[in-house]
Amino acid sequence: MGGDLKHLVIVKFKEGVVVDDMKKGLEKLASEIEAVKSFEWGEDMKSEEMLRQGFTHIISMTFSSAEDFTGFLGHPSHVEFSAAFSTAIEKILVFDFPTVVVKASA
Amino acid sequence: MGGDLKHLVIVKFKEGVVVDDMKKGLEKLASEIEAVKSFEWGEDMKSEEMLRQGFTHIISMTFSSAEDFTGFLGHPSHVEFSAAFSTAIEKILVFDFPTVVVKASA
Repeated sequence: MGGDLKHLVIVKFKEGVVVDDMKKGLEKLASEIEAVKSFEWGEDMKSEEMLRQGFTHIISMTFSSAEDFTGFLGHPSHVEFSAAFSTAIEKILVFDFPTVVVKASA
Repeated sequence: MGGDLKHLVIVKFKEGVVVDDMKKGLEKLASEIEAVKSFEWGEDMKSEEMLRQGFTHIISMTFSSAEDFTGFLGHPSHVEFSAAFSTAIEKILVFDFPTVVVKASA
């Protein structure tokens, strides 16, 4: 599990956006592009409002190498999806980092 | 892998904070408290500054159940560490959410 690159995207969607459509687009992306090693998403409903500053959705993808990640960013499906995605979000945070696994799932 | 709860903490440390000490504290916490199912951290060095808004470190823990997570929050070691941690951070985001695994690592 060590050595993976994580692409973590945290967003608040604009009002009126059909979040399910966004999810379907992301699922399609993750299944189409082999370089995506794993993909999880989540919707925050538990933390304190003050601590999440209006952000609601978390998208987390992992890649085995920098090459895989670069390939993903430039993949036509990603480029196309990103264009649609960017019109749907009110605000966004993006983090790209090598993961350091301190305690792994049993 | 499905059904886990994720506790995602994103921070910017204050200037002068010895980040390694924070990491050691977190590692100790994750190893001491059995309820912590997995623990990863990362330091963002790749995304665009504009997209990360000054945040630099990502801490990600998973728990098997809401009970485990609640137990973690109230654990004396967590309470003690949180007090020290909160003095070291300039800003913080916290997200707690059930993870939905769409594509799992092979």
